[in-house]
Amino acid sequence: MMQTSEIQWSSTERTIARSAFEKAYSREVGALMSEVRNRSGQLAEIEDLWQLHDFLSARRHDLDGKYDERDSALLFVFAQLVKEGWLSLNELDGLDPQKLTKVAALTRL
Amino acid sequence: MMQTSEIQWSSTERTIARSAFEKAYSREVGALMSEVRNRSGQLAEIEDLWQLHDFLSARRHDLDGKYDERDSALLFVFAQLVKEGWLSLNELDGLDPQKLTKVAALTRL
Repeated sequence: MMQTSEIQWSSTERTIARSAFEKAYSREVGALMSEVRNRSGQLAEIEDLWQLHDFLSARRHDLDGKYDERDSALLFVFAQLVKEGWLSLNELDGLDPQKLTKVAALTRL
Repeated sequence: MMQTSEIQWSSTERTIARSAFEKAYSREVGALMSEVRNRSGQLAEIEDLWQLHDFLSARRHDLDGKYDERDSALLFVFAQLVKEGWLSLNELDGLDPQKLTKVAALTRL
């Protein structure tokens, strides 16, 4: 495992990271809300409602775990978000090149 | 607590009870689905989504507990459904008068 826990973050980098983090979160949440609206419009049976509940339980758990803001997790989080399409690598421009290289490498794992 | 566990149910009564049970369930679930559709149409923030999830968790738990089909629970269940407006007493017509009296009494507790 890469030693990300000892990586230093400048204040500019923190601003960039915070902004990228929030953009990705906002996109993913927006997509989730659309899907919930869509599913709700198609509710026909009680089973659909419990499936919607199960779906929300799983997505909430997933999001709570994924958006980990700890410094030690951040590069892994960004790599996952890039892989999943919620963030573009170029939205991390301004981070030091070593961090960008690590994120890019992690996206290829 | 009333001794409902030893009450006997004829096959006609079982049919009436089953039908009343299903009508109430279907009404309550229908109302719940409407409310979920309504709330989903008004989702604006992630917090709304998690509130919808909490709401569904609570309602599911409530419904799972409330619609108890065991013979020993049935008169209590009917009384609660009548109190909550999901069932009318007259939809239990055909049950023996003693049972109807018990349900009616329970609705007044």
